[in-house]
Amino acid sequence: MGLVVQKYGGSSVADAEGIKRVAKRIVEAKKNGNQVVVVVSAMGDTTDELIDLAEQVSPMPAGREFDMLLTAGERISMALLAMAIKNLGHEAQSFTGSQAGVITDSVHNKARIIDVTPGRIRTALDEGNIAIVAGFQGVSQDKKDITTLGRGGSDTTAVALAAALDAEVCEIYTDVDGVFTADPRVVKKAKKIEWISFEDMLELAASGSKVLLHRCVEYARRYNIPIHVRSSFSGLQGTWVSSEPIGDKKVEQAIISGVAHDTSEAKITVVGVPDKPGEAAAIFRTIADAEINIDMVVQNVSAASTGLTDISFTLPKTEGRKAIDALEKNRSGIGFDSLRYDDQIGKISLVGAGMKTNPGVTAAFFEALSNAGVNIELISTSEIRISVVTRADDVPEAVRAVHTAFGLDSDSDEAVVYGGTGR
Amino acid sequence: MGLVVQKYGGSSVADAEGIKRVAKRIVEAKKNGNQVVVVVSAMGDTTDELIDLAEQVSPMPAGREFDMLLTAGERISMALLAMAIKNLGHEAQSFTGSQAGVITDSVHNKARIIDVTPGRIRTALDEGNIAIVAGFQGVSQDKKDITTLGRGGSDTTAVALAAALDAEVCEIYTDVDGVFTADPRVVKKAKKIEWISFEDMLELAASGSKVLLHRCVEYARRYNIPIHVRSSFSGLQGTWVSSEPIGDKKVEQAIISGVAHDTSEAKITVVGVPDKPGEAAAIFRTIADAEINIDMVVQNVSAASTGLTDISFTLPKTEGRKAIDALEKNRSGIGFDSLRYDDQIGKISLVGAGMKTNPGVTAAFFEALSNAGVNIELISTSEIRISVVTRADDVPEAVRAVHTAFGLDSDSDEAVVYGGTGR
Repeated sequence: MGLVVQKYGGSSVADAEGIKRVAKRIVEAKKNGNQVVVVVSAMGDTTDELIDLAEQVSPMPAGREFDMLLTAGERISMALLAMAIKNLGHEAQSFTGSQAGVITDSVHNKARIIDVTPGRIRTALDEGNIAIVAGFQGVSQDKKDITTLGRGGSDTTAVALAAALDAEVCEIYTDVDGVFTADPRVVKKAKKIEWISFEDMLELAASGSKVLLHRCVEYARRYNIPIHVRSSFSGLQGTWVSSEPIGDKKVEQAIISGVAHDTSEAKITVVGVPDKPGEAAAIFRTIADAEINIDMVVQNVSAASTGLTDISFTLPKTEGRKAIDALEKNRSGIGFDSLRYDDQIGKISLVGAGMKTNPGVTAAFFEALSNAGVNIELISTSEIRISVVTRADDVPEAVRAVHTAFGLDSDSDEAVVYGGTGR
Repeated sequence: MGLVVQKYGGSSVADAEGIKRVAKRIVEAKKNGNQVVVVVSAMGDTTDELIDLAEQVSPMPAGREFDMLLTAGERISMALLAMAIKNLGHEAQSFTGSQAGVITDSVHNKARIIDVTPGRIRTALDEGNIAIVAGFQGVSQDKKDITTLGRGGSDTTAVALAAALDAEVCEIYTDVDGVFTADPRVVKKAKKIEWISFEDMLELAASGSKVLLHRCVEYARRYNIPIHVRSSFSGLQGTWVSSEPIGDKKVEQAIISGVAHDTSEAKITVVGVPDKPGEAAAIFRTIADAEINIDMVVQNVSAASTGLTDISFTLPKTEGRKAIDALEKNRSGIGFDSLRYDDQIGKISLVGAGMKTNPGVTAAFFEALSNAGVNIELISTSEIRISVVTRADDVPEAVRAVHTAFGLDSDSDEAVVYGGTGR
């Protein structure tokens, strides 16, 4: 008998009907002879509604009490799901993050899991129960306060529990059919990926693919837990994410896994920086002190006549204001002429372990962009990824051109179902 | 510096505005030099909405998961209240029943508090925080499962915490101005009671007064915790409930505290019961085995010609069906002709410790009812209470007649504010 961890997102349990449908699917897994642990998110818009309430009573809700508030959402969905399962004649018990032994650090609103001690889950399973666990939450090791894990936290909860319970697989149920070679809303001919390595998935997640978050994949890779991303609205196989193809599946490692894009970043250019040692360090120390994560960096060739250069970097648009303020505040310390802020940029990334051994990939990538008339503003590469920054308006065309150039298009137009059964 | 426990009901924290108003009041108590512990119920209709959701996924929600669900309500209100207080520049921490050390038995949906270990509350207070505690909930001693305390459970939480923390007073904030000599919706001239003894309050609660529940008053009496029932919508003094009048208040114990009424009961008459030893026992054993609590009992004088008698008793209307079924099922064992069910009855009760030493009270009570043309069907008395059962339609007139006869009317018509600021 195997142990399966299943995770259902908020859109899968948005209402009573959704909860009942999910309950049936869980019971099926149990009937197939598995021990089943289910991680569930808050119903549909519950979290947003709670945030809205919080903002009505306090202009900047944060910290311990905000976590206490948000965790009410999963408490509701998990209890309802357990009831729905019982109503189908199977035993189920729900557990908060704390009860499930999800131990975190004390950083409220974005805590990190530091240990999982699932004693109560084991007992519940051994007694024949289906265990339902609240996603997104834990309890802090030192203060025993309720914490939340931040965006995508329920996926991380599921993977962490799967690791602690030595599960065969962690199934992530969502409202899409799996991970695609590109965003199907942009590329109609995008294909569902049958299998992808942890490494390629990490690069896709870092490059804008939203199906799985980086942190969750990182956790799964560390503990070697296979993830199966699939739709809660259909019975189709989704995408397997693991170190090696699972079971008897002979899936060849593709040269290119997919094309990701991201239009959530902005570019800041620091103009007129003296071209001497320590200047870049001063800029990026300022940014780091403001706790802002940056992505790509480029330094222009210095103009010999002035001895001045420009340094550009990209960062989340949401951090733009903060970065500009921090740099302006430290203008005299750093020494620069002016700042330019540009939030009309987009990033296109090509990901695939095959590019390590296929030297033509980079050239083909730039050719495809050139043929599509797309101008490149910044370039950054890793061993298995090439990313470029372009105008935001060029992104859809650029993604389609690259997708086609690397032979990723499916044979039929719109053969791919996106969004499950039409939700 | 005193320690005050305040309890706010769902109508006081029904929306963001209510939460902010309550936060201000709490901060005032803190500014007055008190250590403040606040027990809060779920916002407005939250609990009903959660019950509705539960019924959509399962026809008979109950037990462990139902408690897990319902406790989400207080989690939301307490976190929001703590945020609102912080927003006023004071420190506040919220605690679930479990975190506050409210230990209960394992009877889900109506657990009883068996211990309170408020170590974390003490620490929070000592660090200068206002402590916000979720009402209505606890954690079971043996299984460490989340439990709820049933109707009125937040009041009991407040009194239990006040006892464990040796508080000076437990303030119960509600949407009425206090305890009245009669229900002001029925008797316009009802007066707010300044002070009432635990004993009289217990009898009023048992007789239909809904401001405080019996269990909460019982708990307060056992640990001698003064209760102050008052409106969260005004700054007025409410009603003090304690063993003796508080402080320098010279409040004379009234002969009669008030008139309560109750139209939530029904009457069952078991017709044609053999008038021999053991018959009544057989009937009430049957009722007790069905876990039904009965209130008044009356046995008619036996008709000599037949050797048969009738036995009547009252019970909550909600238990009527169950009682009839239990008796019918055991008809041959008990031996009776037929059952009569009557849910058009009402109970009027006169409560006051003074009736022990004032022999004329009973006579005056019956005279008042007689003058008002009210027919009496059943009578029951305790040392400090007389109750009668009448037709339900007669109840309002009967309550007013008794209220006037015992000099309880206030001097002015409708001088009494009921329902606070019009909510």
